[in-house]
Parts: sequence; C-alpha cells; structure tokens
Amino acid sequence: MTYQVNLERIKQDIYTLSRFGYNAEDQGVYRPGFSDADMKARFWFLAQLEALGLDARMDGAANVIGRFGPPDAKALLIGSHLDSVPAGGIFDGVLGVVAGLECIRVLKENDAPLKYAVEVVATSEEEGRFGGMLGAEALTGKLTMDRLERAADRSGELLRDAMARCQLPYHLAMEAARDPDTLIGFLELHIEQGPVLEQTHHTIGVVEGISGVFKWLIELKGKADHAGTAPMNLRSDAFTGVADFAHEISRIIDEEGTDRSRLTIGSLELKPGFAHTVPGLSKFTLVGRDMSEEVMQNLANACRKVLSAIARKHRLRFEYEEMSWLAPRPCSPSMMQLLEKHARKLGFRTLVMPSGAGHDAQFFADITPTGLLFIPSVGGVSHAPDEWSHWHDVEKGCQVLFNSALELVT
Amino acid sequence: MTYQVNLERIKQDIYTLSRFGYNAEDQGVYRPGFSDADMKARFWFLAQLEALGLDARMDGAANVIGRFGPPDAKALLIGSHLDSVPAGGIFDGVLGVVAGLECIRVLKENDAPLKYAVEVVATSEEEGRFGGMLGAEALTGKLTMDRLERAADRSGELLRDAMARCQLPYHLAMEAARDPDTLIGFLELHIEQGPVLEQTHHTIGVVEGISGVFKWLIELKGKADHAGTAPMNLRSDAFTGVADFAHEISRIIDEEGTDRSRLTIGSLELKPGFAHTVPGLSKFTLVGRDMSEEVMQNLANACRKVLSAIARKHRLRFEYEEMSWLAPRPCSPSMMQLLEKHARKLGFRTLVMPSGAGHDAQFFADITPTGLLFIPSVGGVSHAPDEWSHWHDVEKGCQVLFNSALELVT
Repeated sequence: MTYQVNLERIKQDIYTLSRFGYNAEDQGVYRPGFSDADMKARFWFLAQLEALGLDARMDGAANVIGRFGPPDAKALLIGSHLDSVPAGGIFDGVLGVVAGLECIRVLKENDAPLKYAVEVVATSEEEGRFGGMLGAEALTGKLTMDRLERAADRSGELLRDAMARCQLPYHLAMEAARDPDTLIGFLELHIEQGPVLEQTHHTIGVVEGISGVFKWLIELKGKADHAGTAPMNLRSDAFTGVADFAHEISRIIDEEGTDRSRLTIGSLELKPGFAHTVPGLSKFTLVGRDMSEEVMQNLANACRKVLSAIARKHRLRFEYEEMSWLAPRPCSPSMMQLLEKHARKLGFRTLVMPSGAGHDAQFFADITPTGLLFIPSVGGVSHAPDEWSHWHDVEKGCQVLFNSALELVT
Repeated sequence: MTYQVNLERIKQDIYTLSRFGYNAEDQGVYRPGFSDADMKARFWFLAQLEALGLDARMDGAANVIGRFGPPDAKALLIGSHLDSVPAGGIFDGVLGVVAGLECIRVLKENDAPLKYAVEVVATSEEEGRFGGMLGAEALTGKLTMDRLERAADRSGELLRDAMARCQLPYHLAMEAARDPDTLIGFLELHIEQGPVLEQTHHTIGVVEGISGVFKWLIELKGKADHAGTAPMNLRSDAFTGVADFAHEISRIIDEEGTDRSRLTIGSLELKPGFAHTVPGLSKFTLVGRDMSEEVMQNLANACRKVLSAIARKHRLRFEYEEMSWLAPRPCSPSMMQLLEKHARKLGFRTLVMPSGAGHDAQFFADITPTGLLFIPSVGGVSHAPDEWSHWHDVEKGCQVLFNSALELVT
C-alpha cells in the first residue's frame, strides 16, 4: 500500500506563505526573524496545525510545533525554518516546513498505525538576522542566555527587544530545549541552493553532512608607491600577493583537497585604492570548506604556507585572523541509507552530496539521528526573488521524505 | 672660473615656502592650486623677485615669472610649480622654483655676461586640483577656453570661480601663452618621487622623457554564487579572473615590455563583496606606462589578449573602457646631453631614466628644447609629509642645473 503526498496542497501552502512579507516591487520575500511578517506567518501556520487537530504550540523561541500520534511516544521531528533573508525566494525553508505538515496530513488521512509520534517543526531565525539557527539551537539545547542577551541585528536592535515586541520574554527561549531521549530523529527537506543536482541531472540529493567551514581575515602589507615612479622590481605590491595566492587556489585543492573542498575569496579591499598608486595594503577574506576536518586542516596549512611564501617573495607582511572554525556536521548514516533507499525505490536519480550551506539539521545532528534531503534549485539560485524549484521535484522530494518518515514511525 | 650655488639661501627659501599651507597636525603642506595658501606663497615669491630687482609679474594663469638679462633677448625658462597636493611635502615643485631663482641670483651677483635672458617660472595648479598642469598648459599655449570654463575640483567648485576669488579673471589665463620663438629652452629640477636613484646609488637623474600612460577601467562579469553550495568547477568567479590576469603581468612585461614598463592594478572592487559569496563582478583599473608608444601598444594588446583568454576560461564577460591614452613626451636630446655632461663633470653618479610621473616639463617639451633633472627622494617617498631629499643632493642638483643654464645663456 502506498500513500501519496498531495502536490496541490503543498503548492497552495507554499504560495500562501509567500504572501507574508512579499514585496511587489522586487518580488522578493522579506521575512527576517521576529519581524511582523515572520510572526504573522508563524501564527498562520500555527492556525493550520490547530485546524488539523494537532497538538500545536509556539515555544519560547518562536518555533511552531504540531504533534500527531501516540501522546507518550517518542517523536520524529520533520521541519525547517519559516523566516527568510531580505529579498528571498518562496522555497527556502518553507518547503521543509510544508513538507513536514504534508507528511502528517497524509499519515492522518490514511489513519496510518503509528509506533512513534511525528512533529512538524517550523524553526525560527535560521537565516541570520540575529546570528541565525536560533530556533534549532533552542530546540537542541545549544542556546545560551549570553547569546540571547547580546545578539543584535545589523541596525543594532537587540534580539531580546525584538522578541519582547513579539510578546516573547527572551529567557523562555531556553525552555524550548527538547530532551533527546524523547526523539527518534530529525528529517529536513530543503532546496539545494546550488547548481549541482541540476547540472548533474539528479532529482534527489541525500546530504552526507554540512561542510565544515573556516573563515580567515587576511592582510598583506606592502608599500604604497606612485605607479609611475616605482619600477616593477622595486615594488611591494600588496595586490600582487593576493593575486598570486588566488592563482594557487586550484592547485591547493588539487593537492590537499577533495571534490567537496571550496576556497573562496569573496571580499577584498585595496588601500589606498587609487588607479595610479601601487596598493600598499590588501585586506581580504578566505572561506574554506570541506566535509572532513582533517582535509580542512590540510587546506588551511597549505594556504598558510603559500601565503607566507608569496609574502616573502613580494616583500609583504602576512597576517591573518581566524574569524571562525566550524567542524563538519555529518548526517546519520542510517538516515542517509533510509533516504537513499526510498529515493531509489521511487526511481529518482539520487546523489549523495555535502551541503555547503548551513541548515537547521546541523544542530539536530548532534542530538538525534538526522537526515537532510535536497531537491534541485533552478540555475542554482537561492536567497533571491528568482529562486525556483520545479513542482514535480517538490512532489518527488516530499514523497521521499514521507516514505522515509513512514518507515521510521510505523 | 666656477660659480657656486648657495645652499643656505636655497634651504631658507624652501623652508620659508613650506610655511605656506603648513599643517601642524600632520606636518603636511596643503597648498592646492588657487587656495589662499597657494596665492600667498605666489605673492611672497613675487615679492622676492621684485626685491632682487627682476622684471617680475604674475600672469593671467597665476604663474609667477621673474626675468633677468638682456631685455630683448630670447629667454631660457627655469622652474617648476609652487602648488602642492594635500598633505604634501616641502620639496615637490618648490625645489625647482627655488633652484631657478638661485640660478638667477648667482648669475646676477657674479655679473655673468649674458647672451640670453633667464626667467624663473613658478607654475600654477600642477598637482591636479582642477586637472593639473594648468600653468604649464597656459604658458605653452595648450590651454583652452573650454577647459577654463568647465574644470572643477572634487568638491564641485569651478576653476573660474576659484580664480575669480583670487582676482584672476579666468579668460586672462589664455594670455599667458609664450611665443616659442622667444625661448631657447626650459629646464626643471625636481625630486625623483621614486626609489630608483637612491636604490641604485645615483645622485643625479637625467630624464629622457615622461612615460606615456594609458588607463583602463576593466569589468569582468561572472556569476555571484553561494561560496558553500557552488562547487569550484561550476563557478564563474569574477575575482579568479583578475587574479589570473595580475599573475600574468610580469610575463607580459618580460615578453612585450622594457625595464621602463609599468602595469599596475591600483583599484579593485568586488561585488557583492561578501566573504561567503563567490564574486559575480570585479571592476578594476589597469594603468600602463612606457617610454615608447609602440611598446605601450604592445603591452595594451597583450593585456587585451590575456584578459580575453582568461575570461573565456572562467566563463566571464570581459569589458574595458580606455579612460585615457597619453603618448610619451621625450625630453630634448641636446638638453639631456648638456645636463649629463655637467653632472659627470662635477663627478656625480648620473643615471639616464624615464619619469613615470608627470611634470610641467612635458608641456614645454612640445614647444622648446626641454631638460628635466632628478635628485634622489629618501625612501622614494613623495606626496606625503615625510617626503625628503638630502640637502647635499639639493645642492648638487642646483649646481648641475646652474652650470647647464650658464652654458646655455652665456
């Protein structure tokens, strides 16, 4: 016997949610965490859960949770986030939330015999207005009072003030923590937000984990000179140093990395930054990623060595600050096998792949068996109004999620 | 018989002029063209010329000129500019003006028998507040009414308004033009503003000409991507394009250039410019220089070819705009020989070299035999409060200038 997810319902929910924070001018969704639009979307979703007769609530961190199944049983959590980046798209986060709800709807309407409960979770502030992943941190017991008290957004508004305006006393966010012993796992369906599935003609991505990531702020200091009077061989050109380093990145990955490795220079400032002046200082970021922390270490060591050598060669001073180092978060092998099995059973071309972007799942992976599924993003676009995923892929992703959940809870 | 320049007088004049526009806070000189400080310095200098009994005047472009010698004879012009960049040093420009005055003083006190007159010229607005080289342009007949009417400084103030405030009706600047037939040459002594003389242990630089210079504004357009989700091989990283190009610059110069060639990326902007985003656009400047226009062409062609190839390789769109193309301005070979002869006669280590920076001399080179002399800049520093040249080098430069002038006018 097979239960089918209902694409029309999914579509309608995604479109309905897209109206919260929709901006007609750029056609983007503006639903940053704890904004009016975000809270309205949460209350709308809560009302849907209540209308379905679920045991529904908003916790102290603004996560919206609806539970279905045996009252005292352990639960499988399914979900993602409801907030968006400014000028975001309609699928990011929302897809996973609606998919979780759809799983419960299908179980409920088919009266599936449940050993475990299923809870749909719409997490809060994943996208980073106040640092990101707040709801997931709260649910998994990783949130601290310190963070709650100090977090602020770009405009300087404090998280606790934003929460107070939403009638949420900030310290109650600590009470959102779930006892891992009451959980059997966490599943999340998300758009890939990258080009891999589309370009390699896969429909389903089974995520092996969230890549570890390090971020360096690097300075190469040389000497600003008149671009006319300083001969090439007497310069200490701070830009030449960055350029030579960037040129070595592909070699560094070939030698020390994997096909999961990424090294990116995304931000760069030259000083003084005049056309007729040899740059005396370059400040730039280096962000590195891999699924293996050992590979991350090797990449970082190689970058350090190459930058030191280049600095010596060009008479520059090399300094860097490690702004962050986050270890990879592997998904549960059993969950990966389960998701892959159901995807293949349904005949979908399936790829095991890392996630280069962060997701709520990475926090749940620490406390309960966690699985993360991707469907293709058209053109790899996300965090933009033209973010899109084809409805047939949405349907397939939801069906794999449902079939996997069904096996876990029945 | 040998006439000696008097270093004490030269020193005193340079120090006196350094007080006009001196800023105690950063110890820089602020004497932009047509500022109060600039005009006060000009009137002080004019008074010096008058006190010496010269035929002295300020022309319609604010050039201050003092003439000594036979009234109806042709004249050798000697000079440089009196204005400064903001936060400039005490030698740039001033050295050449004071040296010109000293030449006249020595000729006068020794009653040297003159075939030709000598005129010391303190040119106006060389440094670029309103585009630069204004006084030299006026004297050499290159100034246009259009430029006088349209030029504005960074704050938007019009040149003609600034001139009006100095009681200078702007159209009278056109009357500053000198008839080339009344001139026998132009000599300028200037600090090198670069590191070559110091690093190669030379005292005197005989300038073969002002390098030609071109300036491009280049755009490489790729695709902004999430630095985590976009695999290295699926990116169109606009920064990788610049880096690969910058990496090829030394090869381009080896293959197409000379030891006088310069290629500089001085200004660069990445968009969107976030650490976690693959740059989708890089905008940067390329400034190229050489003493030969043919070499400049070859360098430009090679840059175009390399940028096109790199753009194809990285799936980028390459566009550039040529903001300016100024041909090299060679100095007069006879003047170079004269200056070199007198420098070597005095036993000074002398180097024939190009000037990468622009100077008043480049305009005079078009209408009269022109020579330009350099003395070393300590650390190659200029356009900064710590600009310095040793007094013994100042003395040597002035003596070479005087001896050369003496041969020309007696």
